[in-house]
Amino acid sequence: MKKIGILGTGIVGQTLASKFITLGFDVVMGTRNVAEKLSSTARDVYGNPPFRQWHDSNSTVKLGTFKETAATCDILLNATQGLNSVSVLKLSDAKNLKGKILVDISNPLDFSMGMPPSLLPELSNSNSLGEEIQKTFPDLKVVKTLNTMWCGLMVNPTLVKGGDHTVFICGNDSEAKKEVITILKLFGWEEINILDLGDISASRGTEMYLPLWLRILGAKKSGEFNIKINA
Amino acid sequence: MKKIGILGTGIVGQTLASKFITLGFDVVMGTRNVAEKLSSTARDVYGNPPFRQWHDSNSTVKLGTFKETAATCDILLNATQGLNSVSVLKLSDAKNLKGKILVDISNPLDFSMGMPPSLLPELSNSNSLGEEIQKTFPDLKVVKTLNTMWCGLMVNPTLVKGGDHTVFICGNDSEAKKEVITILKLFGWEEINILDLGDISASRGTEMYLPLWLRILGAKKSGEFNIKINA
Repeated sequence: MKKIGILGTGIVGQTLASKFITLGFDVVMGTRNVAEKLSSTARDVYGNPPFRQWHDSNSTVKLGTFKETAATCDILLNATQGLNSVSVLKLSDAKNLKGKILVDISNPLDFSMGMPPSLLPELSNSNSLGEEIQKTFPDLKVVKTLNTMWCGLMVNPTLVKGGDHTVFICGNDSEAKKEVITILKLFGWEEINILDLGDISASRGTEMYLPLWLRILGAKKSGEFNIKINA
Repeated sequence: MKKIGILGTGIVGQTLASKFITLGFDVVMGTRNVAEKLSSTARDVYGNPPFRQWHDSNSTVKLGTFKETAATCDILLNATQGLNSVSVLKLSDAKNLKGKILVDISNPLDFSMGMPPSLLPELSNSNSLGEEIQKTFPDLKVVKTLNTMWCGLMVNPTLVKGGDHTVFICGNDSEAKKEVITILKLFGWEEINILDLGDISASRGTEMYLPLWLRILGAKKSGEFNIKINA
């Protein structure tokens, strides 16, 4: 069974890690400073409980530095804040990324202009986070997916309409996309609801959907929704 | 019955005009130069037939300058290219816009960077076309809607899944939104599928969905699709 490395220990990373553990995978979570992360009692910026509280009930998940996580795992998932993703991957070291799949779930949200957030100008419209990661690490197989919904739905699509809604996927490497589709199916996604948008430049599309997602969230007052492409 | 003024004579304007005529409205379409528009035999940038070919079979639609259209109509629809919308509205003259509803259907697409188009940087992310129009003409009641789909679906939602998909609406004036919702219902939209996203700043969300829409179009090879919010 392949070893899963999740970069980022926030609520998205935790949700993914719990699911992979349930599915029987070995999981390592990457963080900047392991000792600090395990001892911290602070809530995160969204008001979520400290990491160690989650880790107490998910203790089979190992914690490592970004570099250790990248070096020891077969498939990586980027669940860091979009603003930090490229620098985190640099800390992971390009030689540890070579030939590996990175499932990029992050969005380049910019909270500096107030709420709801906009996108980082340098990572939107004529660029995207998915493309920027791919350009920076040409030997990494970046597959963008799952970034268009609340994390609870990513790993449990049946929460909404029995799973009848759409998840997008894009990336330059067809074999890598196939492998990620296998993971999506383990999460509960049906083939018919997985829409391949082509190469990694389609990240521009899925990331730029976030401002609409945030406003639907505002109208619905709940993250338990997703879009379905009806045709 | 209120008189409908459509700014723009392209395929979106034509589709809306035909529908309003079928519904029994008086329709005026606004253009830069009436004589030129009626005599031109050129196809538009998308390869659509010249306006006069459509007008021959829709001859009850009157043609006027932008200024005449704005001056004589009760409800206006912006179906111009987003790049030109503000300058077209300036040609219409602010005093002709005062207190009127403008249904803004356009998107600030930027074709200068190649295909698929991106958004005009100055009208996206921290701004939008809907907001820019509202800021430029504070006495106009801008209601953004219908800009997230192919024009055929705007006026005939039942083409897809019996109409079971979502149209967004936003704007600062609640009464104006109510009036536009009445029009959406005449077009065939059901109340349950009309989602009010709040004030005009939500235009940022619906316009920034376009890059994703364009990629779904690329994957589906047909504009006959729309998103449904499943919750």
